[in-house]
Amino acid sequence: QYEHIVLAHGGGGRLMQQLLERLVQPAFANPYLAARHDSAVFEAGGQRLAFTTDSYVVKPLFFPGGDIGKLAVCGTLNDLAMAGAKPLFLSAALIIEEGLAIADLKRVLDSMAATAKAAGVMIVTGDTKVVDRGKGDGLFINTAGIGLVGPGVDISPAQVRPGDVVLVNGDIGRHGIAIMAQREGLAFETTLESDCADVSGLVAGLLEAGVELHCLRDLTRGGLASTLIEIAQSAGLGIVLEETAVPVREDVAGACEILGFDPLYVANEGRFAAFVPEAHAERALAWLRAHPLGENAQAIGRVVAAHGGAVHLETAFGVGRVLDLLSGEQLPRIC
Amino acid sequence: QYEHIVLAHGGGGRLMQQLLERLVQPAFANPYLAARHDSAVFEAGGQRLAFTTDSYVVKPLFFPGGDIGKLAVCGTLNDLAMAGAKPLFLSAALIIEEGLAIADLKRVLDSMAATAKAAGVMIVTGDTKVVDRGKGDGLFINTAGIGLVGPGVDISPAQVRPGDVVLVNGDIGRHGIAIMAQREGLAFETTLESDCADVSGLVAGLLEAGVELHCLRDLTRGGLASTLIEIAQSAGLGIVLEETAVPVREDVAGACEILGFDPLYVANEGRFAAFVPEAHAERALAWLRAHPLGENAQAIGRVVAAHGGAVHLETAFGVGRVLDLLSGEQLPRIC
Ligand SMILES: Nc1ncnc2c1ncn2[C@@H]1O[C@H](COP(=O)(O)OP(=O)(O)OP(=O)(O)O)[C@@H](O)[C@H]1O
Ligand SMILES: Nc1ncnc2c1ncn2[C@@H]1O[C@H](COP(=O)(O)OP(=O)(O)OP(=O)(O)O)[C@@H](O)[C@H]1O
Ligand SMILES: [Mg+2]
Ligand SMILES: [Mg+2]
Ligand SMILES: [Mg+2]
Ligand SMILES: [Mg+2]
Ligand SMILES: [Mg+2]
Ligand SMILES: [Mg+2]
Repeated sequence: QYEHIVLAHGGGGRLMQQLLERLVQPAFANPYLAARHDSAVFEAGGQRLAFTTDSYVVKPLFFPGGDIGKLAVCGTLNDLAMAGAKPLFLSAALIIEEGLAIADLKRVLDSMAATAKAAGVMIVTGDTKVVDRGKGDGLFINTAGIGLVGPGVDISPAQVRPGDVVLVNGDIGRHGIAIMAQREGLAFETTLESDCADVSGLVAGLLEAGVELHCLRDLTRGGLASTLIEIAQSAGLGIVLEETAVPVREDVAGACEILGFDPLYVANEGRFAAFVPEAHAERALAWLRAHPLGENAQAIGRVVAAHGGAVHLETAFGVGRVLDLLSGEQLPRIC
Repeated sequence: QYEHIVLAHGGGGRLMQQLLERLVQPAFANPYLAARHDSAVFEAGGQRLAFTTDSYVVKPLFFPGGDIGKLAVCGTLNDLAMAGAKPLFLSAALIIEEGLAIADLKRVLDSMAATAKAAGVMIVTGDTKVVDRGKGDGLFINTAGIGLVGPGVDISPAQVRPGDVVLVNGDIGRHGIAIMAQREGLAFETTLESDCADVSGLVAGLLEAGVELHCLRDLTRGGLASTLIEIAQSAGLGIVLEETAVPVREDVAGACEILGFDPLYVANEGRFAAFVPEAHAERALAWLRAHPLGENAQAIGRVVAAHGGAVHLETAFGVGRVLDLLSGEQLPRIC
């Protein structure tokens, strides 16, 4: 019903989903895209590869806990990891607005390089474009990534099964709130830092530990709630989410109240949901909790055959309600 | 000496080269990037792959002979082809300015899909971001691409040898002039159409025909002159370019005079230079000329051991001069 693009078309909610379903999927129609996975997985020359891309338009460029460069590398590493791939190579394409301070650009490039190095990947190709003042916003970065998918690894929404336990690797909402607080000039007692992190090492560790992973998804735009709804829809199954089990730090919960956000819908950049068979849940949790990026890991819900395509939130009072995709205009440009 | 980014930093000339050498290369330091090739070529799982990316910020979005979508697909196919790779999969990441007409977006997506289909590649992953009105410029597109590099194929600036003949697959300058004419509202007797095209089929055909290709490079930002200078520098060899042999259409030459551009520095999107050993030059030319995208192919110069790192232009009057990289502010945002 829209004739023009609105901010919500990029918000990770209902309007973005409609845009992708009505315009993008029909135009490019192919089975890889139809899988709606974080990465496309295919064979090339007898080897299974994962391939993914994201552009980053976060504002401001520097924020507590990270910057656009760290985000751009972590985000693509994470999308590769969500397909169970070992990240190998990244690209880096810059769209710079005329007038950007070269010192800021250098800081961002160094941050990208440090993040890539820590992950053991190389940035091997790139591009640099400049647009006129007022036709960009400082700096936009696109990264694409290639990873290797090991034999027997098959992690995707299609693998989700009734009975699967849903885990998260830590408290949610910090990235989005850190950005919004910075942008609105809000000061809280503690500085809220973004959760921005590369979780590919965590995923590799879980796989090595022999944990059976049915599905993984990083909780970016739209937050935990939108992510679980997408997976429930893709899998055609229901998810029961226990509100009290979802880890949210007190300062984040407080900031969410002040800013008027529901932490379930706030974006993260170092958090993911893992769908594992019940028999593997304890081991997975124990493994995650032994790792700095997973110390607050929790089991937060369960996949059920009922409620096909929907997520039921069970609140503290035992009352249930169905979670909806929001339109997507709540948190613009947080990644 | 610059403290802030200027348009020329994205212009494909001297300032861009300095930015890449002083900031990007040192930050990401690795041998793949140091090769400064159109695509990075590496082994992954026992298979040689090519990987490349470009963002497209052309203005206007629609122009005679193409649009930003066609450009975004052809450009990345061409960078893969320049490494001798067979393109397989592409990504498509959109940065949309709030307010873009959805009909325009659909037209661009359909154009991307048609161009990919014609090339036999699939767009398998992507991303969609929206920025506030006045913080973008309608639509920016990034594509990344993966291709397979066949056994024994080794096409790169390092392979250039003294005695190599330099070929181009057709007349130069049409893309840049078509965009500038449209942007300036200039009307010429004939409509100047962009040369925008996917040349990966041409390269595959040359390889199949057994033509030995030492190096290939598509003549994008900075045009033929800048491209040859880059290759001369990378190879540490000289190039002698015969001005009268360089094909330039009369209408393009006329428009260049009116607009004040030198066709040697005007961007193309369906043109490339090929460096082939002399014994293969005739066969390569004949093969190219039999193909619609190569019918105006020409031998335009020769690699020499003298003039290390420089391009000598031999003019119609037999006078020679050394070609310089221009600063890069001449033709902003033509790709
Ligand atoms: N921001 C960047 N990060 C990493 N590498 C970069 C970056 N910008 C450019 N490069 C690398 O520098 C070289 C030159 O880049 P350039 O964009 O000019 O090549 P191209 O894509 O062939 O040309 P065009 O962009 O005009 O089509 C390439 O090897 C490219 O991978
Ligand atoms: N412009 C596009 N072209 C092709 N595919 C797209 C495009 N935009 C999104 N997609 C695909 O739609 C799915 C959802 O994209 P989305 O960007 O939401 O995933 P994500 O990268 O995991 O999330 P985020 O961008 O918030 O990090 C992915 O499979 C992605 O490849
Ligand atoms: Mg993701
Ligand atoms: Mg992502
Ligand atoms: Mg480029
Ligand atoms: Mg190129
Ligand atoms: Mg290119
Ligand atoms: Mg994305």
